Amino acid sequence: MTAITTASTATTSLELEEILAVAHQAARPWAALRPAQRADMLDAVASALDEAAAELIPLAAKETHLGDARLAGELKRTTFQLRLFGRVLRDGAYLDARIDHADPDWPMGAPRPDLRRALRPLGPVLVFAASNFPFAFSVAGGDTASALAAGNPVLLKVHSGHPELSARTGQIVESALRAAGAPEGAFALVRGLEAGGAALRDPRIKAASFTGSIPGGRALMDIAVSRPEPIPFYGELGSNNPVFVTPRAAAARGTKIAEEFIASFTLGAGQFCTKPGTIIVPAGSGMVEHLRSAALPQGAQLLNGRIQSGYVESLQQLSAHPHVSVLVQGPEPLSDAPSPTLLLTRAEHVLAAPRELEAECFGPTAVVVEYDDESQLVPLAQTFEGQLAATVQAQDDCPVAELVQVLAEKAGRVLWNQWSTGVSVTYAQQHGGPYPATTAPGTTSVGTAAIERFLRPVAFQGFPQHLLPEALQDSNPLSVPRMVNGQR
Amino acid sequence: MTAITTASTATTSLELEEILAVAHQAARPWAALRPAQRADMLDAVASALDEAAAELIPLAAKETHLGDARLAGELKRTTFQLRLFGRVLRDGAYLDARIDHADPDWPMGAPRPDLRRALRPLGPVLVFAASNFPFAFSVAGGDTASALAAGNPVLLKVHSGHPELSARTGQIVESALRAAGAPEGAFALVRGLEAGGAALRDPRIKAASFTGSIPGGRALMDIAVSRPEPIPFYGELGSNNPVFVTPRAAAARGTKIAEEFIASFTLGAGQFCTKPGTIIVPAGSGMVEHLRSAALPQGAQLLNGRIQSGYVESLQQLSAHPHVSVLVQGPEPLSDAPSPTLLLTRAEHVLAAPRELEAECFGPTAVVVEYDDESQLVPLAQTFEGQLAATVQAQDDCPVAELVQVLAEKAGRVLWNQWSTGVSVTYAQQHGGPYPATTAPGTTSVGTAAIERFLRPVAFQGFPQHLLPEALQDSNPLSVPRMVNGQR
Repeated sequence: MTAITTASTATTSLELEEILAVAHQAARPWAALRPAQRADMLDAVASALDEAAAELIPLAAKETHLGDARLAGELKRTTFQLRLFGRVLRDGAYLDARIDHADPDWPMGAPRPDLRRALRPLGPVLVFAASNFPFAFSVAGGDTASALAAGNPVLLKVHSGHPELSARTGQIVESALRAAGAPEGAFALVRGLEAGGAALRDPRIKAASFTGSIPGGRALMDIAVSRPEPIPFYGELGSNNPVFVTPRAAAARGTKIAEEFIASFTLGAGQFCTKPGTIIVPAGSGMVEHLRSAALPQGAQLLNGRIQSGYVESLQQLSAHPHVSVLVQGPEPLSDAPSPTLLLTRAEHVLAAPRELEAECFGPTAVVVEYDDESQLVPLAQTFEGQLAATVQAQDDCPVAELVQVLAEKAGRVLWNQWSTGVSVTYAQQHGGPYPATTAPGTTSVGTAAIERFLRPVAFQGFPQHLLPEALQDSNPLSVPRMVNGQR
Repeated sequence: MTAITTASTATTSLELEEILAVAHQAARPWAALRPAQRADMLDAVASALDEAAAELIPLAAKETHLGDARLAGELKRTTFQLRLFGRVLRDGAYLDARIDHADPDWPMGAPRPDLRRALRPLGPVLVFAASNFPFAFSVAGGDTASALAAGNPVLLKVHSGHPELSARTGQIVESALRAAGAPEGAFALVRGLEAGGAALRDPRIKAASFTGSIPGGRALMDIAVSRPEPIPFYGELGSNNPVFVTPRAAAARGTKIAEEFIASFTLGAGQFCTKPGTIIVPAGSGMVEHLRSAALPQGAQLLNGRIQSGYVESLQQLSAHPHVSVLVQGPEPLSDAPSPTLLLTRAEHVLAAPRELEAECFGPTAVVVEYDDESQLVPLAQTFEGQLAATVQAQDDCPVAELVQVLAEKAGRVLWNQWSTGVSVTYAQQHGGPYPATTAPGTTSVGTAAIERFLRPVAFQGFPQHLLPEALQDSNPLSVPRMVNGQR
């Protein structure tokens, strides 16, 4: 792939055509590999990235202003993720293999034919990399790992925020795959907005994923769903991730909650999609004072100039609201290494103008909302749009069942006395909620279930054994878990 | 619900507002029922429909021109389907419950919190009924059954083709649910295009499904995905469902294939979304002669005037193609009870103009395509858009592996020496394929997996037992199958 090894100039339309043609050609051989073979190849990619850590981390630090320790942890998470999808492939349950034997007495009223169904890949997937996780949501991140694992070639649209890191990561991924025996075209980089848009419109692309802003994600989704052949679009967009503190929790551990909240909303300079953007606290409980007097960390440079200017604009907009005041703020709130800021408002104002006061502010700012009565918690929760996460800080004997219920209706993940930043990559993780948190509320972009986005079912009716996919043959040569006649 | 018991006039905007408000209110109590309780209620609906068969079948026959035997079978299938989703609910695997216990040594590099994830309903679902299955894809059909089973209230947009049957079926469903203890608003009818469109745009509707034509389905999908909050839209649109006959199969059982094909494409007067619309046969094998000389059934009245005029138009368009001739046709091909028609063309013409010659013709017409060489089968298969079904008629020793591979890339169901009409409702069924067969290629509208369309995951992090959904509590009070720490 010449496109990977050239400098960070945009992919030309000629280059894109070649990339698409090769990805299209790669779709069948990549899909035809046994899952365990793809698992070995993902392991090889993980090892190659681990081995290149000493080269990649400084590159990432230079381009993103993130610290070495954070980046080392993120790279470890990224390679763990590749290996975890390998485990998913070797297990085989992700294929959702189902066999119904022919049944002349099927109670539907007509004989049941022999039907065998398993999931298969969609075809080439276009992944738009994010800026805020230069490893975990970028070139070799979760979308790439899950789409490749599912058996789809991946075209990775590089984020302009870290071009050199992307080029080098892309080289490593591509050469590790090649050395492991993957077909040419299983993975390639695409650079530039124009090439990204052109790829998204191309009929050879069968699904796309994205992590980023609401306007950016929505614009891409609109392209994906208005194609002559619309395709699935998995966008992880924006989220406020509110925290609800009950009076008893504030009384029992107000200082600790304040400190942990500050650590969470300022982590990574507030540039996480799971940053808690709002904390809802009881008036008169001392929480506001705890937050005002807790030590704010120093300012840190944001990812890039666009993030910086977007942050300043959001902060100014929020601060200018007539019912919002500054609770506490470091010395340089609008500098290019902005000091963290906590704003203050009251429940009745949020209830009156939720869209304005609950807007995501990507960076080290959060809004403190004071309420007078616990009965306001549920109405406040009702005002939120779809969320990635929502948190309850409460004591075990707090009457919060209805609050938890409402938050489960609004969010993909609900936390109890923990903090939403730091999304663990696990089997039961859910990173995705109702719009605008994500464009496809039934899906996750973190955790093993992320693979489900890039598969579709095919049923084989009445087929002889030798023409069935291995997962559906009587002898079950891959030993995949299967449902047979409705029994697991 | 007054809207159910009134005559077949369109739902007014005032009525719609009441229906939406009540459905919105019903969402939480309906979702909160244990799955087995909803199963009992679906069983009650099935029994009530079975008991009303003697009343419903004549109503359906009057409004659709379909025969009593067919309608009786369809009603049986419909009530079986309701009960099958009851089985799915009692089993509980549909919840995809996953528990990850906290793990301080999780190899990601950071401790794993306690995470528990299960699927939950989306909220009120708008179902657009189809015309061609007045029971199985209408008021109490598969979309209604699966959306209700998942725990979502259903607004059912009545198809104008069978208003009286819809009203009566709606009454039966609604009163059976009410008698079984379902919350008011769990199910309601909506009538008229305008009310259907308004409901689709309403923020209280969280998903929609549709079975019908490509233009109609695409127009509704465009509304669903361009809302301020876009929602999942599950449209089952159009399909040609081609049949590929190998030379050896034609030689071994040409007459039988011809007879069975004719029975399949004329079943229900060709008004099935799985009607085989194209049969691809070897030239010089006698297949064309078998098809020409086989007995065509008599003409039958189509479902309604709109279907009839659409059919006449498609048939005239296809026949007017310079490379299409009439192979055999009954005496009244364009009457309001049109005689079946077989058209004839050749492989090279399909390869040159696939979109024209593979257009769906909803009614008793199919196209016979002659090929000269078996090597043309794969290129012909490649010309098709996404399909619900594709069929291979071959002998076990035919070299068709690549053909099957291509068809699995194009279709949701691939058949071997069987016929695509008559879709069995089973665990492994797949009724849905790449666009335009469906708007969401990863889903099915028939079979138990249809329930997956109307659910989304929520993870609970660090929660005390008493605030978790039952499916995620340690004691597993519902005995649902679960994945624990990655093990099933």
